[in-house]
Amino acid sequence: MAIIDTFRFTDAEYENRLARTRAAMEKAGIDVLITSDPSNMAWLTGYDGWSFYVHQAVIIGPTGEPVWFGREQDAQGALRTTYMAEADIICYPDYFVQSSERHPMDYLAAKLTERAWHTGRIGVEMDNYWFSARGYRSLADGLANDLVDITGLVNWQRGIKSPAELDHMRKAARIVERMHARIAEKVEPGMRKCDLVADIYDAALRYDEEWGFGGDYPAIVPLLPSGTDAAAPHLTWDDKPMKTGEGTFFEIAGCFRRYHCPLSRTIFLGKPTQQFLDAEKAVLEGMEMGLEAARAGNTCEDIANAFFDVLRKWGITKNNRTGYPIGLSYPPDWGERTCSLRPGDQTVLQPGMTFHFMTGLWLENFGFEITESIAITDGAPECFADVPRKLLVKN
Amino acid sequence: MAIIDTFRFTDAEYENRLARTRAAMEKAGIDVLITSDPSNMAWLTGYDGWSFYVHQAVIIGPTGEPVWFGREQDAQGALRTTYMAEADIICYPDYFVQSSERHPMDYLAAKLTERAWHTGRIGVEMDNYWFSARGYRSLADGLANDLVDITGLVNWQRGIKSPAELDHMRKAARIVERMHARIAEKVEPGMRKCDLVADIYDAALRYDEEWGFGGDYPAIVPLLPSGTDAAAPHLTWDDKPMKTGEGTFFEIAGCFRRYHCPLSRTIFLGKPTQQFLDAEKAVLEGMEMGLEAARAGNTCEDIANAFFDVLRKWGITKNNRTGYPIGLSYPPDWGERTCSLRPGDQTVLQPGMTFHFMTGLWLENFGFEITESIAITDGAPECFADVPRKLLVKN
Repeated sequence: MAIIDTFRFTDAEYENRLARTRAAMEKAGIDVLITSDPSNMAWLTGYDGWSFYVHQAVIIGPTGEPVWFGREQDAQGALRTTYMAEADIICYPDYFVQSSERHPMDYLAAKLTERAWHTGRIGVEMDNYWFSARGYRSLADGLANDLVDITGLVNWQRGIKSPAELDHMRKAARIVERMHARIAEKVEPGMRKCDLVADIYDAALRYDEEWGFGGDYPAIVPLLPSGTDAAAPHLTWDDKPMKTGEGTFFEIAGCFRRYHCPLSRTIFLGKPTQQFLDAEKAVLEGMEMGLEAARAGNTCEDIANAFFDVLRKWGITKNNRTGYPIGLSYPPDWGERTCSLRPGDQTVLQPGMTFHFMTGLWLENFGFEITESIAITDGAPECFADVPRKLLVKN
Repeated sequence: MAIIDTFRFTDAEYENRLARTRAAMEKAGIDVLITSDPSNMAWLTGYDGWSFYVHQAVIIGPTGEPVWFGREQDAQGALRTTYMAEADIICYPDYFVQSSERHPMDYLAAKLTERAWHTGRIGVEMDNYWFSARGYRSLADGLANDLVDITGLVNWQRGIKSPAELDHMRKAARIVERMHARIAEKVEPGMRKCDLVADIYDAALRYDEEWGFGGDYPAIVPLLPSGTDAAAPHLTWDDKPMKTGEGTFFEIAGCFRRYHCPLSRTIFLGKPTQQFLDAEKAVLEGMEMGLEAARAGNTCEDIANAFFDVLRKWGITKNNRTGYPIGLSYPPDWGERTCSLRPGDQTVLQPGMTFHFMTGLWLENFGFEITESIAITDGAPECFADVPRKLLVKN
């Protein structure tokens, strides 16, 4: 069989990830761990594929290799993308798919029972997109086990990146640099948003001979609202022309083999208003202070407080967190969903941790984003990408 | 405030959708319905935005207008994309986002109680990506209510499309035609997959002056595995060159304002093997028989059985369903998750229902997809797109 090994890390890396996870399971008193988050599944086993719209999971039992669980037709993808042996790939027949009569978790319960993995403390990700309330109930009933909530347990193990992962993220940074350069080159009044997005995808994907690689799909599609609509952070695009006199932020990420480097910039078509010029000054000054605080030994809230202190000085209120950890991700989110850069989060920064320092402002009648993706090091933080850190003005 | 009305249907259409849903609630004995599926939220209110990575919902109470519920910063998106008044938009502060100490559903429980919508039979989508096991528990505890599973209740109301929706899907069909034409034009041995995907996105998105519209992002990224890897249906792409002597299927969709027209075709580079030629004959003959059975008054399983009968004649076993309803969708799935084209599904076909007739084969060492998206009419089914229905051979 053809092995798709391009997305694969070394065996030693996967052994280390499994060992880290098992140590966390032991600490939490978990005998069997069931992870449905596709990012966690990929991180633990290499599994890759757009199959997360049906129920699937990786299960780590008390001993031995992890088990992949999914739909019958996707077992072929598991055989090709993971390091796992066929005996460790369990799949359910297609009549379990989107059926109101039977649930894939009924099937998993039976299979876990066969392996005698049905007793003790069994952990599931109760607050994850991919493990539904019905899945929980079917599994708990099928195992006659209350199940334990281990949301985030695997995600937390992903926090400190290996050198190979950092290398992937640096490649994603090359891609996002190219995406922003393309936007700067192409954007102009009258250009239709959908055409600009086509250019953004082009820059996100194409192979570069010098680099020796091309791009993967980011976990979030481009967000690029204009004018007063930019007060709403999560609008995508339409097919209307861009207008003179409006600012537009571009929240995008480069992606290399599922590893992300998000980076946002803002462009004003025409003469920027004082509001934009003030936002630029406040954000850039706050960014500097935040980066200064992004040191090993400090905490997540130290970065946020440094940034928010500057905003307060400028009379700007930002009612939301100012960043989150990043790395390997699948839709709908390129964040890792563990710590956040916000007051009260006392997670200690360690070398190898990576964050999107999300200094975006969504104010009453406009939005402004200049952000950086960073790695914590032994000294000053590494900014992954090198894109001019300023408001871009075009006529 | 600028109103993004391009994605909006008429008020009468939304009133009709709400009335249909309320009738279904009454039939199911549901007093309050909470839908977290972004496709259902958009269908009921027009809400659009990439915010489904945090908890959100639309709530239909016993009387009055629906309520939008989501994150504080996304209320700006709700104000801009829905028809709803500010009083019907409830949002939770950002410190509820991805917190291990508090859950957005605690907040929703309090707000529903304020509105006296906390008693009676409250329905939630228990088997949906976007309503987690933890969300269920927080809401059930917060309301001191057992909650009722209404998975699919709103989805079922979406089954029969309005003329305006069919028009959207026909526009998506123009887009998917252009995508396949671009693939046929560009694909050749040595072309890197990531470059071909860049071309596919270009054809999916750009504005066409003659049509008067451009494209939106499909709910699934392009799937295009080659050779023996095409035995796995859900692999995406890498940055390696395509090879002579290999077949590749292209499972893609055109998307216009979140409405989809999926369509798959297969391309062989070089001289196709007998296996591919046989698969082509079997699938095309089965497709004809299936389309023949796709008549109002027949059932979903009639289409599937007609197709499977032909496959059996050719000695081919397909262990999975052969289609599903389509229309308005958000990631991770462009299917509607109600009925399926498979034996045993006795859903009666009605004019205005739309399906992806998914006749794909994923066999031991290759894959083959020639599919059609169709609408049930008073007579023969309408095939949305016009793409040559054959194995494409290129050298």
